[in-house]
Amino acid sequence: MHVHAFIKEMECLAPPELAEDFDTGKIGLVVEGRPEISRVCCALDVTPFVVKEAVLASADMLVVHHTPLWTPITAITGHTAGLMRALLSAEINLYVMHTNFDRAPEGVNDALAELLSLGDISPMSTGCIGSCTLSPAEISHRLGGNCRSWGEVKNVRRLAIVAGSGFDPSLLNEAQALGADTFLSAEMKHSVARTAALPCIEATHYALEAPAMQRLSTRMGWQYIDDPPLMQTIP
Amino acid sequence: MHVHAFIKEMECLAPPELAEDFDTGKIGLVVEGRPEISRVCCALDVTPFVVKEAVLASADMLVVHHTPLWTPITAITGHTAGLMRALLSAEINLYVMHTNFDRAPEGVNDALAELLSLGDISPMSTGCIGSCTLSPAEISHRLGGNCRSWGEVKNVRRLAIVAGSGFDPSLLNEAQALGADTFLSAEMKHSVARTAALPCIEATHYALEAPAMQRLSTRMGWQYIDDPPLMQTIP
Amino acid sequence: MHVHAFIKEMECLAPPELAEDFDTGKIGLVVEGRPEISRVCCALDVTPFVVKEAVLASADMLVVHHTPLWTPITAITGHTAGLMRALLSAEINLYVMHTNFDRAPEGVNDALAELLSLGDISPMSTGCIGSCTLSPAEISHRLGGNCRSWGEVKNVRRLAIVAGSGFDPSLLNEAQALGADTFLSAEMKHSVARTAALPCIEATHYALEAPAMQRLSTRMGWQYIDDPPLMQTIP
Amino acid sequence: MHVHAFIKEMECLAPPELAEDFDTGKIGLVVEGRPEISRVCCALDVTPFVVKEAVLASADMLVVHHTPLWTPITAITGHTAGLMRALLSAEINLYVMHTNFDRAPEGVNDALAELLSLGDISPMSTGCIGSCTLSPAEISHRLGGNCRSWGEVKNVRRLAIVAGSGFDPSLLNEAQALGADTFLSAEMKHSVARTAALPCIEATHYALEAPAMQRLSTRMGWQYIDDPPLMQTIP
Amino acid sequence: MHVHAFIKEMECLAPPELAEDFDTGKIGLVVEGRPEISRVCCALDVTPFVVKEAVLASADMLVVHHTPLWTPITAITGHTAGLMRALLSAEINLYVMHTNFDRAPEGVNDALAELLSLGDISPMSTGCIGSCTLSPAEISHRLGGNCRSWGEVKNVRRLAIVAGSGFDPSLLNEAQALGADTFLSAEMKHSVARTAALPCIEATHYALEAPAMQRLSTRMGWQYIDDPPLMQTIP
Amino acid sequence: MHVHAFIKEMECLAPPELAEDFDTGKIGLVVEGRPEISRVCCALDVTPFVVKEAVLASADMLVVHHTPLWTPITAITGHTAGLMRALLSAEINLYVMHTNFDRAPEGVNDALAELLSLGDISPMSTGCIGSCTLSPAEISHRLGGNCRSWGEVKNVRRLAIVAGSGFDPSLLNEAQALGADTFLSAEMKHSVARTAALPCIEATHYALEAPAMQRLSTRMGWQYIDDPPLMQTIP
Repeated sequence: MHVHAFIKEMECLAPPELAEDFDTGKIGLVVEGRPEISRVCCALDVTPFVVKEAVLASADMLVVHHTPLWTPITAITGHTAGLMRALLSAEINLYVMHTNFDRAPEGVNDALAELLSLGDISPMSTGCIGSCTLSPAEISHRLGGNCRSWGEVKNVRRLAIVAGSGFDPSLLNEAQALGADTFLSAEMKHSVARTAALPCIEATHYALEAPAMQRLSTRMGWQYIDDPPLMQTIP
Repeated sequence: MHVHAFIKEMECLAPPELAEDFDTGKIGLVVEGRPEISRVCCALDVTPFVVKEAVLASADMLVVHHTPLWTPITAITGHTAGLMRALLSAEINLYVMHTNFDRAPEGVNDALAELLSLGDISPMSTGCIGSCTLSPAEISHRLGGNCRSWGEVKNVRRLAIVAGSGFDPSLLNEAQALGADTFLSAEMKHSVARTAALPCIEATHYALEAPAMQRLSTRMGWQYIDDPPLMQTIP
Repeated sequence: MHVHAFIKEMECLAPPELAEDFDTGKIGLVVEGRPEISRVCCALDVTPFVVKEAVLASADMLVVHHTPLWTPITAITGHTAGLMRALLSAEINLYVMHTNFDRAPEGVNDALAELLSLGDISPMSTGCIGSCTLSPAEISHRLGGNCRSWGEVKNVRRLAIVAGSGFDPSLLNEAQALGADTFLSAEMKHSVARTAALPCIEATHYALEAPAMQRLSTRMGWQYIDDPPLMQTIP
Repeated sequence: MHVHAFIKEMECLAPPELAEDFDTGKIGLVVEGRPEISRVCCALDVTPFVVKEAVLASADMLVVHHTPLWTPITAITGHTAGLMRALLSAEINLYVMHTNFDRAPEGVNDALAELLSLGDISPMSTGCIGSCTLSPAEISHRLGGNCRSWGEVKNVRRLAIVAGSGFDPSLLNEAQALGADTFLSAEMKHSVARTAALPCIEATHYALEAPAMQRLSTRMGWQYIDDPPLMQTIP
Repeated sequence: MHVHAFIKEMECLAPPELAEDFDTGKIGLVVEGRPEISRVCCALDVTPFVVKEAVLASADMLVVHHTPLWTPITAITGHTAGLMRALLSAEINLYVMHTNFDRAPEGVNDALAELLSLGDISPMSTGCIGSCTLSPAEISHRLGGNCRSWGEVKNVRRLAIVAGSGFDPSLLNEAQALGADTFLSAEMKHSVARTAALPCIEATHYALEAPAMQRLSTRMGWQYIDDPPLMQTIP
Repeated sequence: MHVHAFIKEMECLAPPELAEDFDTGKIGLVVEGRPEISRVCCALDVTPFVVKEAVLASADMLVVHHTPLWTPITAITGHTAGLMRALLSAEINLYVMHTNFDRAPEGVNDALAELLSLGDISPMSTGCIGSCTLSPAEISHRLGGNCRSWGEVKNVRRLAIVAGSGFDPSLLNEAQALGADTFLSAEMKHSVARTAALPCIEATHYALEAPAMQRLSTRMGWQYIDDPPLMQTIP
């Protein structure tokens, strides 16, 4: 398949016009490789391990959620030089779907809702709310463990979920107004926790977003490269 | 003591000119109460519990680290109205020392270094580096537990500490260049963890900063009001 | 009446969407008091006298034209602390209608036109023009005296009126183009007077806007608190 | 005298580096006429009357306080075209000294202090404070009448004066802190009057600034062209 | 014809709403002269020669492409004073049509296309593309000579033309995508030439735009004043 | 030699603190290759030809004047992907010296002055002025031909030179004030030519700047790769 055809297909899965304004110029084809695509790998981030695996797999294309070129650059040095040398030398294309995939059908938030078996789902401006039959411990377990509670998390009935870094006061207020009793996201901040409208469950960013990339890979017949950050609760 | 004299004393402890530019207008006397100060309370944040205790203690002055009026306001409603009504009705002054106290001698980072028994200390642009004889588990224990490690935290010899939200790539690079082997701060972000120059220990914002307010209270003969956020690892 | 119902009623009288952009966040409920409203006071400004009278009247709500929190604040001190302490302690709500009330039917400009018995009224982008049968002295008298003329004010036939601070060159030009022969507003500036397209009558800001608040009070059964600034021509 | 020499002389009288930043590009030679200067006229503003008189006087140079090109222009039409045609056709140079002359020795504020016979003068960030032996009525009389008082103006002992539009809350506070009991300036605004730190006397902008141009003309042997705005209290 | 009627006529020829945003305030009547228009001159630029000729021709109106007041001014001195004195003294109106005339029917690009006998024309976002039967030497000849080629200009079949300074990478890419084989414009820059998508012919700005003003003059019965810049290839 | 030592050496030749502010982040090591440097190539621009030659020469380092990453990027595609793939795959470092080398001793302007045998040199804010004994034709010849004159270029006695794109009105005025009679630079614009203070000679950007890179290569024992743009006067 030509890379142009591949891009078209991706734009059906995750339409660029769904993306937030801050993603302008940071999604789509971010590194250009060879024009013919037969082997595709997929991951959440462009880490050295992910690139090494993609090279070993003789991939023509790597699809990820987070661009490695977030801050605009005028020099290619250090960590970035390593990643770009590996990708460009191997002529691997890099394609990014970010907030457009968060919001796409079967996208990041949909995959998370499915992973947590949420029912009766209603959308929020970002993320969604659904009925939940899992206990906090079961939620944490499905998310690979290591979750933390902020405030008094008790019986979860209506769970608001925002994949990624979603502990925003206005989202918390929106979730409360829409009937949620608990809010799940990643990267809690002290200032937000102090006035949070709802009790919160904090998972890792990776645990919330990787499932969507994994499911996408399965659906498309791609090779998913798993590379979670090494994080542990200190006993 | 008149409030003007009290302010002068505070400005010796935590000179306003040490503060970051973003603190302009957000430190010093943030709520004006009665002019005569005899009873002083102290806390990290202005929470409903802290204000209630200060009122019960018949405080004339409340000294805190975080202003409750961070975002400039044109209306006093909701949560803020509750806090302001309680303070203003009781004529309690509110005094804020933020990044100026982070950097002051015996300030936030000094108190943290002392709590962790760091030796041979050298300063960074923010925070400092010191020799550490504690294990990660002991560090976590001194910080009230619930710490997490990112990357491979092993023997800690030279520990970089930045109280508050200090997981910044440039600070991590600075710490590495200065010889640190581990970096301690709060509020890790996924994007930082992915390319962190050092293994990291993440504590809560409260655990890193409250000790300084507590020690200041002891030193000054004030009443410290402890109000940590309710956070737990989900088993 | 619950404060939410009261706000809805006010939004019918002076729809927020009529307001200028610079009023964003500065109209509506500006200080939150008790939720149940039975006694309402009204004034042009939130002065110490006005607040004292509202407290004496056991008001639950104070409706004004000018917010006391125009410049966004990060501290409540001095004059503002005095006003806010009095309002918050007494749990008096403060509701502001500004440029939305200027333009509302029976709003600030309509009340002024009525006070001056203008007929055959046509609107301007701000304010309006009407036929006038009063002499300049009679106009001044109806506005409480102390008016001043700039340029040669003679027989007034078609009078342009802009309540508040409306001596703007583009409004003066608009008024002239629409057939006005005289322009009435407040707060003349030297640079505007030097090239004014029309002869002008300058009243005080208070004299032009207070009548609308007074009439609104009468209409709604509220208590109007009159507090004009002390201004006199030096003999 | 060549225009370059004339400019040098003016820059000694009113050094450009004394000017406020907002005057950048708006003082000095603002319209270029013939290079040889023998006859000089002077006025406060560039009005049609002033220009006509300067032409009648066969002036080579017109010195004023207020530039007619305050707002940067990309077209010369209407009122401005009339002024510029008259000046350029007659090859009259136009020289502006504004905030640099306000602050110069024997400049605008000095001339005003002298007119009011102030003694024991101490400077403010703008304007100055001096001992005053005149009554409010005498002050008004020396300023051509038509002054107004805001607040309770009684015995004036220490008078703060700011020529031009100087009713600024921070200047009022400064004057109060420095011991003034009354504040004299022009163009009072309602919002300032409501919280003014001192009782105020309001004169016209012209009455406060013209004396300096008049005295400068006398001192230099120029022809002063008087053109006060037509303003009257309506009886 | 009154100047208002003349302006209306011009706005039909070159509707102001076709202009680029950066032309706001810089097209239309830029210098106001006498109100009655009978004699009209036309040129590309407002040079001293052009103004002198317009005065000699007793013109009431001068129509040009480039405003002499591009950068907003707060002083009329030097070169500008000379031009403005001549125009204002002679009461000649100055009317500017710039990017609105570039895009107007029979405007700047249309006139250029006609001069080069282009056929089968299709528009670009700026300029257009047409079939060309001229050799590069013939193109240069029709443009008054002195053209230069960048890259390998061979047989020109489909020529993209952008009058004025149009060597913009995005325009070059657009032209290539639309099938052009050569790109004609003025003011080539080194950085653009280095990555140009097409071989380019560079003419002078004057040679590309003057023909439209000349043709307009002929069509309207105005006097065209030709004043090309003196430019020569050094042998 | 290690790349760090090489960078230090370059920073002596062309100190980064001499650069214009707009060069921040765009000079120095712009692409990171292998750490050991033995073979160095040098060119003006990073063109496909230059990169191919550097690869063929087994260069470890390429030193250029113009960065290929001028506009900050968030994607590496198209033309840029080609250049970066070639450099990164071959592990060639890319080092940029731009406005810092323009101003350095023996830098771009010095080399140009030497090429034109200028004597009695005095500096300008950018570029310099020197006595010239060449005719315009000889100047053009030394610059590889294809120069153009704007205005009446006659006997050149004192020549102002600004390598690169230096036809700026303020530089032209500065040169005139300093006694120059002719101005040499590249990339003349119509608007500048129309009011130029001096007659001008326009060369190509490449012809003015390449000599410095060539001389630097000779001095340092590097391989210079010549790649002038293909430009010709159309006969």
